[in-house]
Amino acid sequence: MVGDERAAVLEVAEQAKVAARELLLATRAKKDEALLAMADALRADAPEIELANREDVAEAKANGTSAALIDRLTLDFLRIESLALALVAVAALDDPIGEVIRGWRVPNGLQITQVRVPLGVVGMIFEARPNVTVDAAALCIKSGNAVLLRGSSSAKRTNQALVSSMRRGLEKVGLSTALIALVPGDTHESVKHLMTARGLVDVLVPRGGAELIKGVVDEATVPVLETGVGNCHIYVDRDVDIDLATRLVVNSKAQRVSVCNAAETLLVHEDVAKDFMPIAMAALAEANVTIHGCERTKPFAADAGATFVPVTDDDWAAEYYSLDLAVGVVDSLDDAIGHIQRWSSGHTDAIYSDSNEAIEEFLGRVDAAAVIVNASTRFTDGGEFGFGAEIGISTQKLHARGPMGLTELTTTKYVVRGDGQVRE
Amino acid sequence: MVGDERAAVLEVAEQAKVAARELLLATRAKKDEALLAMADALRADAPEIELANREDVAEAKANGTSAALIDRLTLDFLRIESLALALVAVAALDDPIGEVIRGWRVPNGLQITQVRVPLGVVGMIFEARPNVTVDAAALCIKSGNAVLLRGSSSAKRTNQALVSSMRRGLEKVGLSTALIALVPGDTHESVKHLMTARGLVDVLVPRGGAELIKGVVDEATVPVLETGVGNCHIYVDRDVDIDLATRLVVNSKAQRVSVCNAAETLLVHEDVAKDFMPIAMAALAEANVTIHGCERTKPFAADAGATFVPVTDDDWAAEYYSLDLAVGVVDSLDDAIGHIQRWSSGHTDAIYSDSNEAIEEFLGRVDAAAVIVNASTRFTDGGEFGFGAEIGISTQKLHARGPMGLTELTTTKYVVRGDGQVRE
Repeated sequence: MVGDERAAVLEVAEQAKVAARELLLATRAKKDEALLAMADALRADAPEIELANREDVAEAKANGTSAALIDRLTLDFLRIESLALALVAVAALDDPIGEVIRGWRVPNGLQITQVRVPLGVVGMIFEARPNVTVDAAALCIKSGNAVLLRGSSSAKRTNQALVSSMRRGLEKVGLSTALIALVPGDTHESVKHLMTARGLVDVLVPRGGAELIKGVVDEATVPVLETGVGNCHIYVDRDVDIDLATRLVVNSKAQRVSVCNAAETLLVHEDVAKDFMPIAMAALAEANVTIHGCERTKPFAADAGATFVPVTDDDWAAEYYSLDLAVGVVDSLDDAIGHIQRWSSGHTDAIYSDSNEAIEEFLGRVDAAAVIVNASTRFTDGGEFGFGAEIGISTQKLHARGPMGLTELTTTKYVVRGDGQVRE
Repeated sequence: MVGDERAAVLEVAEQAKVAARELLLATRAKKDEALLAMADALRADAPEIELANREDVAEAKANGTSAALIDRLTLDFLRIESLALALVAVAALDDPIGEVIRGWRVPNGLQITQVRVPLGVVGMIFEARPNVTVDAAALCIKSGNAVLLRGSSSAKRTNQALVSSMRRGLEKVGLSTALIALVPGDTHESVKHLMTARGLVDVLVPRGGAELIKGVVDEATVPVLETGVGNCHIYVDRDVDIDLATRLVVNSKAQRVSVCNAAETLLVHEDVAKDFMPIAMAALAEANVTIHGCERTKPFAADAGATFVPVTDDDWAAEYYSLDLAVGVVDSLDDAIGHIQRWSSGHTDAIYSDSNEAIEEFLGRVDAAAVIVNASTRFTDGGEFGFGAEIGISTQKLHARGPMGLTELTTTKYVVRGDGQVRE
């Protein structure tokens, strides 16, 4: 049975690889036609999708799943329509394939160009939300890739219905249905077969919590595009517009807490603490933020009526994803940078300052996917960057770092044109 | 003891990480000064290096190592001078760090730039040749990275002497010696600690045979920059200049055989076989190439007096690195592409043709790091591409594909500058 499961996974991957080769030749017009046909199929199949989803939701409720998770799992007709609209939106994006990134001629006359091409077969491993099934398929088709999807087993009927529907769309425009497939099997072993299918699967994109990502990194031999977790820092410098900094801190922390670009730690230069802290603590208290603060933070929090807890190393390391904020007063910019180098996850770190010197030092020494000056940390986002679509935010350094758009689902090849050149 | 070894490896990695942070602030002038000081140190320490190498060579001989490997291991004064010259050459290359790759302004006024920065700490795992020790150190310092070196145990005294010498060069210009370090220990476990030091080591670059690379890919949790192996193909199309194609085939196969960009398989369109094969087989026989051919190749090889062996699947898969060539007659361009899709390692595949239609189809459908038209396969090379330095040739699709220069030892970060922007 185990051998059968492996064979089943590899067969689907092999079919995806063959289909991806055909997609290499598809024009942008053909790919966009497919995306629109997939949107139409989702609309036509909405009753079946909604029914399948209702069964998944019923099972999840019977298993005692939390209300928040149930909400993320649920697809009503309105949400199915928004999935269809997402497909239409991806069709409108520029096609990254075929872009000539650079080109030159070498002394012997060879013409070399570096051209953007699809990765081939993308393996997507993700948790509950069924919208990822449609987003991932849309982004992969647009970027010329086949996609193998492995969602959560709690959404299995929904994902099956969504994939069947999107495949009908592909069929309608004459593309291979093997371009979008679910990974067969629902054991851990079946994911493992996907993660080790070197030569068939070109890249894995895990989307989910830290544990999911760690599991993939540990077990995969196929290269992984990690979408990262965010322990984002703000440093409020000595020379700063206090009202502006306060507004930015509150927005970074509290505008939406369950996201990776929300701020988790605030570091304040001691010279500005007595002016900045009373205003900032009051604003954070107003926003219901619990302060996990150092000794020097405590009196300011108390005076402002903020909820205060003494800070620990666990707080400095935490990604709260909640209305909690670790706060420390630091002696200098250097201390702030040292703290960030020790604790930051390298997602987004921000400085709020009027000093050009301090800003330049911060930008030069803080090594994160995004370093932000005088704006909310919440701007590290594919949509805010203008990428149109986002696969996730990479905190790794290879291939892609920061918000990833369609371009990050591509690779390049060199085209070398000669007229008889040989090496001597 | 095992715990001690792990601690020792992680300590060296931690020191390298701290040193890499300091190097972030080094100007190009400082890095070049370091490279020149390292070159001077190698020259000054040549007697000690030569002595250490003599001990490694003596031990290798006593262990019955082959003459070819002994030659690769041996460093005489002339070779040490060429290592020093390699450092000087890298100093002359452009600095990739600080390049602004792109920049734009989004509607709310945020200015976003994507800037090239170092990776951080690079782990280099390689086999016998001690020149890699110096090349790797030079390329990493130039690109702003610290490097952890793990060479072959047969070169341990030589590598120790080279690293000590280069560290003296770093010291002389006031940079941290921790920027260049050998991985402590010589067990397999010590490499394993390096390969799993996530958070300390940013990337691993294995350089060596297929087995070394596979071992690293299987065991590493740190991301790997694979330098690939090459099973390169040539397709000779129906419409072709026969003399030109013959010259290119001979150069691709025989100009130097022990390299990854040498051709290993020749596919010939049947319509041109009766004109092309007699000339090509004679030229290959002249170059002492053994033909591993299909049934249709056999009579041509026999007539030309070439050594002939019937081809097997092992031949189609082989990277000979020798004067052997797999040869097949194919019915069509489509058959040739199908064969390449099945057997190619995706390093370099070439078409020799006068037909624009055939060339465009080949370029569109063959997915390799380099696709070459009417030139020798031997041109897939960092030096020939004009990169000045080469870390290796990547046959993976993430991060880098094809010849890798200094740029491939870098990543990017986004710098976002605002004046109080918040998300609504």
